[in-house]
Amino acid sequence: MKIRVFVSLKDGVLDPQGKAVGHALETLGFKGLGEVRINRVVELEVPADNAADALAQGEAMARALLANEVIEDFSVEVAA
Amino acid sequence: MKIRVFVSLKDGVLDPQGKAVGHALETLGFKGLGEVRINRVVELEVPADNAADALAQGEAMARALLANEVIEDFSVEVAA
Repeated sequence: MKIRVFVSLKDGVLDPQGKAVGHALETLGFKGLGEVRINRVVELEVPADNAADALAQGEAMARALLANEVIEDFSVEVAA
Repeated sequence: MKIRVFVSLKDGVLDPQGKAVGHALETLGFKGLGEVRINRVVELEVPADNAADALAQGEAMARALLANEVIEDFSVEVAA
């Protein structure tokens, strides 16, 4: 079963990559942009028979490796 | 209006970061995983009055900077 783990920086944590992209976009002529943030999506195929098991595996992997919970939030969904 | 630009490697393009994460997950005891791919989501606040305009701006930014269309695909959506 295919799942997606979304990992994003918590509110209030500086995103230097997003800031750099925001500046570059302004330079390219895209004016009036608000905050730009760059997040990650990890797509994986997990060995699960049902959605609940797949989501549980995704959450375990996020806590173990995919997200740094000190500064990042994550959410898991089953891909359509 | 807030939009999200999803950027993913095209099928067939090697994702070394995904491969490394896949190996690390196996080492941590998550067995039987299929392919792991790591994609980007850029979240931006754009100055637009309607969804069509916001999506058009997102597409223009993706083509100009956010995605490398040689090896990456992108899609744009309005955030809820």
